[in-house]
Amino acid sequence: MGCVQSFRELCDRQKNTNVRLSLPAVCIVWQTAMIILFGVFIRYNEESSPRWVEYRKAKNISSDIENDFYFRYPSFQDVHVMIFVGFGFLMTFLKRYSFGAVGFNFLIAAFGLQWALLMQGWFHSLDYSDGKIKIGIENLINADFCVAGCLIAYGAVLGKVSPVQLMVLTLFGITLFAVEEYIILDLIHAKDAGGSMVIHTFGGYYGLSISWMLYRPNLDQSSRLQGSVYHSDVFAMIGTLFLWMFWPSFNSAITDHGDGQHRAAINTYLALAATVLTTVAVSSLFQKHGKLDMVHIQNSTLAGGVAVGTAAEFMLMPYGSLIVGFCCGIVSTLGYIYLTPFMEKYMKIQDTCGIHNLHAMPGVIGVVLANNMVPTRQGGHQAAGLCVAICFGVGGVTQLPIWGDAADDNCFDDEAYWEVPDDEETFPQVPQYNNHMRNKDV
Amino acid sequence: MGCVQSFRELCDRQKNTNVRLSLPAVCIVWQTAMIILFGVFIRYNEESSPRWVEYRKAKNISSDIENDFYFRYPSFQDVHVMIFVGFGFLMTFLKRYSFGAVGFNFLIAAFGLQWALLMQGWFHSLDYSDGKIKIGIENLINADFCVAGCLIAYGAVLGKVSPVQLMVLTLFGITLFAVEEYIILDLIHAKDAGGSMVIHTFGGYYGLSISWMLYRPNLDQSSRLQGSVYHSDVFAMIGTLFLWMFWPSFNSAITDHGDGQHRAAINTYLALAATVLTTVAVSSLFQKHGKLDMVHIQNSTLAGGVAVGTAAEFMLMPYGSLIVGFCCGIVSTLGYIYLTPFMEKYMKIQDTCGIHNLHAMPGVIGVVLANNMVPTRQGGHQAAGLCVAICFGVGGVTQLPIWGDAADDNCFDDEAYWEVPDDEETFPQVPQYNNHMRNKDV
Amino acid sequence: MGCVQSFRELCDRQKNTNVRLSLPAVCIVWQTAMIILFGVFIRYNEESSPRWVEYRKAKNISSDIENDFYFRYPSFQDVHVMIFVGFGFLMTFLKRYSFGAVGFNFLIAAFGLQWALLMQGWFHSLDYSDGKIKIGIENLINADFCVAGCLIAYGAVLGKVSPVQLMVLTLFGITLFAVEEYIILDLIHAKDAGGSMVIHTFGGYYGLSISWMLYRPNLDQSSRLQGSVYHSDVFAMIGTLFLWMFWPSFNSAITDHGDGQHRAAINTYLALAATVLTTVAVSSLFQKHGKLDMVHIQNSTLAGGVAVGTAAEFMLMPYGSLIVGFCCGIVSTLGYIYLTPFMEKYMKIQDTCGIHNLHAMPGVIGVVLANNMVPTRQGGHQAAGLCVAICFGVGGVTQLPIWGDAADDNCFDDEAYWEVPDDEETFPQVPQYNNHMRNKDV
Repeated sequence: MGCVQSFRELCDRQKNTNVRLSLPAVCIVWQTAMIILFGVFIRYNEESSPRWVEYRKAKNISSDIENDFYFRYPSFQDVHVMIFVGFGFLMTFLKRYSFGAVGFNFLIAAFGLQWALLMQGWFHSLDYSDGKIKIGIENLINADFCVAGCLIAYGAVLGKVSPVQLMVLTLFGITLFAVEEYIILDLIHAKDAGGSMVIHTFGGYYGLSISWMLYRPNLDQSSRLQGSVYHSDVFAMIGTLFLWMFWPSFNSAITDHGDGQHRAAINTYLALAATVLTTVAVSSLFQKHGKLDMVHIQNSTLAGGVAVGTAAEFMLMPYGSLIVGFCCGIVSTLGYIYLTPFMEKYMKIQDTCGIHNLHAMPGVIGVVLANNMVPTRQGGHQAAGLCVAICFGVGGVTQLPIWGDAADDNCFDDEAYWEVPDDEETFPQVPQYNNHMRNKDV
Repeated sequence: MGCVQSFRELCDRQKNTNVRLSLPAVCIVWQTAMIILFGVFIRYNEESSPRWVEYRKAKNISSDIENDFYFRYPSFQDVHVMIFVGFGFLMTFLKRYSFGAVGFNFLIAAFGLQWALLMQGWFHSLDYSDGKIKIGIENLINADFCVAGCLIAYGAVLGKVSPVQLMVLTLFGITLFAVEEYIILDLIHAKDAGGSMVIHTFGGYYGLSISWMLYRPNLDQSSRLQGSVYHSDVFAMIGTLFLWMFWPSFNSAITDHGDGQHRAAINTYLALAATVLTTVAVSSLFQKHGKLDMVHIQNSTLAGGVAVGTAAEFMLMPYGSLIVGFCCGIVSTLGYIYLTPFMEKYMKIQDTCGIHNLHAMPGVIGVVLANNMVPTRQGGHQAAGLCVAICFGVGGVTQLPIWGDAADDNCFDDEAYWEVPDDEETFPQVPQYNNHMRNKDV
Repeated sequence: MGCVQSFRELCDRQKNTNVRLSLPAVCIVWQTAMIILFGVFIRYNEESSPRWVEYRKAKNISSDIENDFYFRYPSFQDVHVMIFVGFGFLMTFLKRYSFGAVGFNFLIAAFGLQWALLMQGWFHSLDYSDGKIKIGIENLINADFCVAGCLIAYGAVLGKVSPVQLMVLTLFGITLFAVEEYIILDLIHAKDAGGSMVIHTFGGYYGLSISWMLYRPNLDQSSRLQGSVYHSDVFAMIGTLFLWMFWPSFNSAITDHGDGQHRAAINTYLALAATVLTTVAVSSLFQKHGKLDMVHIQNSTLAGGVAVGTAAEFMLMPYGSLIVGFCCGIVSTLGYIYLTPFMEKYMKIQDTCGIHNLHAMPGVIGVVLANNMVPTRQGGHQAAGLCVAICFGVGGVTQLPIWGDAADDNCFDDEAYWEVPDDEETFPQVPQYNNHMRNKDV
């Protein structure tokens, strides 16, 4: 703990949010490295290159429609929307951090998917005949999945880190992800189509451990910016809904052709529906006057999709999916009400978006659930996989340098890294939205 | 009318918008009921279960790509977006009811689709060999359609009912929907792929009859909140555009494989394009200075998709589709200008979103249109179907309890049911958006 | 230049933005003309009509899934979203022109796609046996592409023209587009799947030449409205992200079945990812304090998709795609920083959205790139095609009438053509968003 202590003191030094040299340097150098590595390693596979014609003949495939592209492309595009609009807008709820939420999400996802194609390729798609990684649509989907793990982690440190730190967080996150994924899926042979463990549990604990490492004792100095305003909550609902609607595609994108994809979509659709009702119930029950809290509606309604991920393609049965969703809505919402404040106060973990309630816990539930659906031995594998995911997640803390992050009294503020339009200087006089206030005066 | 009178007096009692007990109770109890009923009745069909393998052999199907999932999943996801983002954001136009618009739409749709799977299943997908409902992707699409009927009804009472009332409205709406759908499609044998009559006419009149039942003579006390603000109108355009863009998927989602789906998409695409131009024309022509009214652009531009629904898969011909759209844009926009005020003043129907102009009227046009495209006898069936849809819609009024709705001077206000961020308290001094005002001063 | 001079003086006359007669007249008359022309010329093709059944037999097609609808519909819907939400919201960044951005985009796209179906049909899909144009899903995609050219042009004149002028701009734009497309693809036999030259280069120069023609020397009188506000920048990100995410569908929508579509999607996906990193790098490097500029993030991140368009289905190789994206991000961002101000100051071209940096330049890069990937002779064709695209684009200037556009001190203002909600009159007292200001005071 000594090192951690000194590490924290290090963070309390005078902050300087100027990233004018570090950010361009990281972007240009790393992108150049990607180009070189892609040049050396990455090629098209037999379904995305002209070899498709012979491949069809060899495999006696009757039509172009049987190219994997047509089985998976619609799901891929839905997943792509979840990554960029879903995660990006879900984090716009802060009153003055919408640029950072959507913009940095965009930046790290764009870098992460390139690095993921390489890391995952080396582990899963390497053609030993020529030492090249052969990619097709399924690789793109897996790259997006891999990125999701890092975006989940971003949720925990939203508003408290610099874009340079986020790039580093992503570089290490993708690397750890690919390794744990390889161990879980290829060595332990656990099944995890929807990524409850590989993506959500890993991403959740990775983010939480980084957040713990970056604990800010005086964060309350930024409390004035840590809330939402009316329209930023509506923007966040765009993210929530696109995640919620497309989750069936997320969980079915890489499952087996035919009934596998079909069943995964149905199970996810049902689990998510049940989650919405229990989330609303708990949110209303625990607020005075029974008023609903946007934080719960924006986040907990998604927990069912996380939990059903691993088991999505199993014979979970429609009612089984509803039960999963039912429980997750309750657990996740209670997490926002009781666990998040507890973790901040007693465990020094400041979880901006409450990813522990949305991803980590439901992810664990999903794995436990899956264990009860598969042969015992497989069950053991799932459990082992879970441990790996958590270890790697927590292991993530060790590697985070500190560059250009904001001081405690300057967090959650786009001013630090963005040219923000000077709205109020344009016209000094008259307000626009004030119905809300007046309406209270009445 | 006596009963109605006393019913109205009942509504004028002191209101209490606290739903802390009723809302959680309804959500938990009904969701639990869904789980039990799903456990008893709902299973996967032969295309979404491992039986798919034998089924393929039996039917001599050459590839997994012929699983119905691949014919309909892209359309399903588009329809799903229309239900949650389309309907949800279309209703965010009110300056202070965006949480309620998008949030309650989310809640009742999530409940409604579960109840719809059961109700429609009993009527259409019951496997008499084992008494189970066998579901696949087409059932999910139909469930979303069924929900659409209730969301249309929500549009009429937006801002004037409590979430508990909405749940009840949905429970009865789905039930009525399934029955009228069964009568129209299975007994009368009318055709209605895009649901002009089953969905839009029914939903429209169901909502209007409820709105009539809940007439509020002193609603003008909430007039300060019944308008939009600049950004709430932009949010509403998100809903409008996703409904407009994906309507071809809505009308083709459950039509016959091959040319049926192909033609339905083309017809809808064309009808909607024509509607936009005539809507703009009428909106400009009837405003002083020819300024466009956002209400028309947000709603009437969609009327063509409603009207072309029933006939979407027929040989309507491209020019036929344009004619349908042409007429609907004019009729719907004129409805907003003349009919809505008339209905409020003389018929005691307060239609917040103007669903009569967007859904009810175009729906009737669509059925009449379809009648002229099919053999006379079929035409009779369509007409009979229309009557059933209207009767059931109007029949809807009889069953609405009143729990937790707001007083007349407190409608259209998220304060009643949501924890609204206290924007103005955070920083008492300076305004942000005032260019608009200044720009008028100049 | 004399004529141009007098033309400009003409524009300086007293402006009147009342379009109450002209706009409805144009919409109704042109829509009626569309109906008549569609009645005379447009029919379903063999895949969207009942003839599909015989066609299947004749072609010995084993399943309905091989109908072109299933190869292209998911891509079509993605392209459709790019046209209406992507382009529409990308232009909402101006603080008080969001209605015009999203509304007029909606209007001209809805008209343009109808006219495009006719113009492109006469050139490409005319069935000489009966003189009819036979349409299917691919025609809808091409119509959307054609419209994209005009929406790009709209970006250059955003906020400075009336809806009537936009309709005329679209009528001529679509016509020129179809002709240049015919010359480029059918006479010169250049390849251009993603439309780098046919769509982006043409659209870019068409818009710039019109903007030059409509040069407003006193536009600074509207400078108070030419910027963004916080939430309008977030709305614009919705447009950016949907364009960015669905660009792989844009470039693969009409490429060959099988590996062609597969490869085009992969190449575009990679090029766009690289563009994001170099855009961020340059944006940060050239701003004081290294702060990112939303204008660059909203626009330059898309340049890679434009440039890779023509070569998308070629064997560009994954690293090749990254290189294209890498360069375009740099070039496009530098264009916003240096070229746009230069063009306004010295070339009298006021390019509101900077389409020269987003579409015109990357489009040219894309064509040059494609030339180095194809046999020399084909290369010559590509070059010739580029010249045609530019000529027609620039040729566009000659035909623009001036009706109902705003005076120089009244540009970028929705007040001119929309009923804007009178926010500030509703409640005179208290501001809502002011955290931003206070936060500066601290």
